[in-house]
Amino acid sequence: MIQPGRFITFEGGEGVGKSTNIQFCAEWLRSHGVEVLVTREPGGTPVAETIRNQLLKAHHSEPVDPMAELLLVFAARAQHINTLIKPALIAGKWVVCDRFTDSTVAYQGFGRGLPQAWIEELKLLVQRGLEPDCTFLLDAPLGIGMARARGRAISNGDVIDRFEQEQQEFFERVQQGFHWLAQHNRRMRRIDASQPLDNVQAQIAAVLQELTGL
Amino acid sequence: MIQPGRFITFEGGEGVGKSTNIQFCAEWLRSHGVEVLVTREPGGTPVAETIRNQLLKAHHSEPVDPMAELLLVFAARAQHINTLIKPALIAGKWVVCDRFTDSTVAYQGFGRGLPQAWIEELKLLVQRGLEPDCTFLLDAPLGIGMARARGRAISNGDVIDRFEQEQQEFFERVQQGFHWLAQHNRRMRRIDASQPLDNVQAQIAAVLQELTGL
Ligand SMILES: Nc1ncnc2c1ncn2[C@@H]1O[C@H](COP(=O)(O)OP(=O)(O)OP(=O)(O)O)[C@@H](O)[C@H]1O
Ligand SMILES: Nc1ncnc2c1ncn2[C@@H]1O[C@H](COP(=O)(O)OP(=O)(O)OP(=O)(O)O)[C@@H](O)[C@H]1O
Ligand SMILES: [Mg+2]
Ligand SMILES: [Mg+2]
Repeated sequence: MIQPGRFITFEGGEGVGKSTNIQFCAEWLRSHGVEVLVTREPGGTPVAETIRNQLLKAHHSEPVDPMAELLLVFAARAQHINTLIKPALIAGKWVVCDRFTDSTVAYQGFGRGLPQAWIEELKLLVQRGLEPDCTFLLDAPLGIGMARARGRAISNGDVIDRFEQEQQEFFERVQQGFHWLAQHNRRMRRIDASQPLDNVQAQIAAVLQELTGL
Repeated sequence: MIQPGRFITFEGGEGVGKSTNIQFCAEWLRSHGVEVLVTREPGGTPVAETIRNQLLKAHHSEPVDPMAELLLVFAARAQHINTLIKPALIAGKWVVCDRFTDSTVAYQGFGRGLPQAWIEELKLLVQRGLEPDCTFLLDAPLGIGMARARGRAISNGDVIDRFEQEQQEFFERVQQGFHWLAQHNRRMRRIDASQPLDNVQAQIAAVLQELTGL
């Protein structure tokens, strides 16, 4: 059998630089001869992206029940893991994913206040032991990510989604969630994302060098 | 506080007469002074009906993962319970629902072969003890329901959904699931649905009389 691939995730609040640095990470790995699949959550496959659209849709005809929201997140994740992530890892590819279960803990758990026990149960049921080998936590004071996201939204003409509509206190709780996770999981590497991009990417490259043994 | 309402579900295979007899049940209860809410699963609220459409859609761009399907079913159910069923029961209404978790056990468990333990875990998480007070299992040999559904589809010009596309053996396993459930749950009342409609409705009325104490 081919050596199974590694599973790398990028986490952090809005606009902190996840998508930008995932591209950097994928290019770095490819330039070092690694076969890479880049994907994102919620979503990553056609059925899961349909669920993503429903989750992010800003206007619903009724409030979305928090437990229903959590189950939709894990439905998309089950589809993503079983049809895309696992087959790629088994084929020896490295999978680099924009957000994963840490975001569920931070947004649905810390942000919305759902009991961590619910998330843990669903995680066991859906992931059956699958965990990222390495998670980059892009960390920066809230204002910085917000300003970056706003700058990008203006230049792209983006519409804001159901999560981006939330209040400051919500994002503070999400941030606390990520910090709590970084303290409790050795797979998480905190990256100072308030730095200029070349500095951020130097921090990421150092970890990748360690991971690949190159 | 108002006396909480009762929760009644109708279960059984395709075309066995659930929708027809739910109308009868609701009219019977209303004519005896009971306030009734009629609803259905998957669905029952706008957000849950959107999930239903995704579940029943016959053509997907990729196969739907069985665990993702199960989580979508329970996401719709969480939305339905928390925004519609529980508030109605608390307000003293009787809720009459076309399919509920017994269908999940029969279709996803027995039909698709998902472990019952997965369904049990999600049920605990989402229902937190909510169970129907009475479940009518409309039971008839497979061929009868199929023929009725076909007759109705031809007269309505219906398109067949993702479940209706399944093979004979799938529906046999579903049927076995319903029989297993009826043997293990005292709340379930088996109704011989192979009989002419007036006979079926006499059987249902007898149970309703017992339930209402009228
Ligand atoms: N270190 C940095 N310094 C300055 N600007 C940055 C830095 N990192 C990213 N940016 C810019 O900030 C904006 C947001 O970055 P990006 O889209 O990668 O963030 P994100 O974390 O993926 O956001 P979202 O949570 O909305 O998906 C982009 O315009 C990007 O070019
Ligand atoms: N006891 C009966 N005898 C004869 N015909 C019946 C009987 N019960 C229902 N029917 C007819 O069978 C057809 C299917 O009934 P109905 O739509 O109520 O079934 P259903 O269980 O709700 O089906 P589905 O699973 O597709 O929702 C309808 O045309 C209905 O009029
Ligand atoms: Mg992004
Ligand atoms: Mg029906």
